[in-house]
Amino acid sequence: MEEIMKYCYLNDRVMPLNKAAISPLDLGFVRGYALLEVLRTYGDALFMFNKHYQRFIQGAKLLRLQPIPQNKQLESCIYQVIKANKATDCKIRILLSGGPSKIDFQLSGHPTLYIDCEPLPYYPPSFYTKGIKLITLVYKRGLATIKTTNYIEAIRNQPLLTQRQAQELLYVSDNKVYECSSSNILIFKQNDLIIPKNDILEGITMQIVLNLAKKYFSIKRQDIFLSDLKKANECFITSTTKEIMPVVKIDSLVINKGKVGPNTQRLMLAFHNLVAQYSTKSIKKRR
Amino acid sequence: MEEIMKYCYLNDRVMPLNKAAISPLDLGFVRGYALLEVLRTYGDALFMFNKHYQRFIQGAKLLRLQPIPQNKQLESCIYQVIKANKATDCKIRILLSGGPSKIDFQLSGHPTLYIDCEPLPYYPPSFYTKGIKLITLVYKRGLATIKTTNYIEAIRNQPLLTQRQAQELLYVSDNKVYECSSSNILIFKQNDLIIPKNDILEGITMQIVLNLAKKYFSIKRQDIFLSDLKKANECFITSTTKEIMPVVKIDSLVINKGKVGPNTQRLMLAFHNLVAQYSTKSIKKRR
Repeated sequence: MEEIMKYCYLNDRVMPLNKAAISPLDLGFVRGYALLEVLRTYGDALFMFNKHYQRFIQGAKLLRLQPIPQNKQLESCIYQVIKANKATDCKIRILLSGGPSKIDFQLSGHPTLYIDCEPLPYYPPSFYTKGIKLITLVYKRGLATIKTTNYIEAIRNQPLLTQRQAQELLYVSDNKVYECSSSNILIFKQNDLIIPKNDILEGITMQIVLNLAKKYFSIKRQDIFLSDLKKANECFITSTTKEIMPVVKIDSLVINKGKVGPNTQRLMLAFHNLVAQYSTKSIKKRR
Repeated sequence: MEEIMKYCYLNDRVMPLNKAAISPLDLGFVRGYALLEVLRTYGDALFMFNKHYQRFIQGAKLLRLQPIPQNKQLESCIYQVIKANKATDCKIRILLSGGPSKIDFQLSGHPTLYIDCEPLPYYPPSFYTKGIKLITLVYKRGLATIKTTNYIEAIRNQPLLTQRQAQELLYVSDNKVYECSSSNILIFKQNDLIIPKNDILEGITMQIVLNLAKKYFSIKRQDIFLSDLKKANECFITSTTKEIMPVVKIDSLVINKGKVGPNTQRLMLAFHNLVAQYSTKSIKKRR
């Protein structure tokens, strides 16, 4: 079971989570003004911190959040939380909000930094061996390229997943396919690996997968329409915690006769190899 | 100067604002999952509470926030905050968030209720006598019909207003005009009063104005394109704190030769008369 751990980092120090207090005047609470970053560890090695940090500072710039912690400083804060919780294989959330503001719509100049960690969510092995089902939802994220805390549509539609026995929501607008509620979508048309062109969050796992894929496949960045899904011979989603998860059904559309395809399997293998190498290297480096 | 007052209401009681603590696990903070409602008083009379409450419960239903306070109970909470702050002519914020959640994406079943108040924002009289300027921004709110706490685009673009000496941001997408960052937009083409058809928040002030306007003008609900703005002979915005504010410039487009038009003036007068009557009635009722 997924459960938040007992210690978090707030502003300038590690503290028990039940002592951590956010002011209701924090723009992260009262105006949903906050940047989010989700990372993970493999064992006790933080995965691809620098890539996450790059996205984080880009987002902070667009949200005018200043000052933001330096690279090494933020990495150290994360390790402090991991250590306090004696955590391994965990999911880490970093949140940087507008901070407590006495004047509506005006940034305080003192962003709130919050970090917590929890065990990785459990996904049954069958999700990877047999594939999952997505359901489409008419929605397109505003400010899609920034990872903000705005997950309203994702949360309010969770019951749909249970009702329709599906694992993820796929956002579709004007017949165009964008992204899932907390993952990217990629499709294969033969050996072309296709990702949506615009208005999606650039997932770190997606970036890594594209880098691995370019050896084997031609990569195309273009609009994906609902009609393209019918022509896809394989489909998968990527996220930090889900890694590469094959998709065999979208609403009533069955992909690759409901089987996980060979291209997706090749990428899953390449990704696992990368993780294995990365973890060993990171552990050596930290010793 | 706008300044938050000293007492707020949190969950079940009035308390000093500096003692009010939100858990960082509150879905309102960590996932931007919260409903917002903004009301005002005239003197000590709460204006149009029932209309605001109707919108609030509709939003709560769409966000699956339960239980929500009953009509009379919520009204009483608001008056408790007003009384504790000894406030008159104030702006009231009500926030109902997903509550503290130990499992990501899962509602707690214990929404957080937060209420505060502050003096009304000050708008110079010239805004009403000479009109204001809007600047357009390419954006369209997702879930536009629900008043959530998602004000990211509004807040991050505040510097544009100062730079371009304007008072409000107008959201435009695919050449269609939707709403301002915290107000509705309405235009006149001769004696036709036109409001955007879809994907806007149904402002309470807009609803009141339409009700007053139907005596004098023909009301049309239709898509408003950027090209329609050029044909508009009057334009104004509405919001709880701004009431009816005439618009004489949108980017470089001058409306009605830069003067506040007679139709807008007629509505402003009708609105002021309504407020005067309403306040008198409310005060009598409460004695």
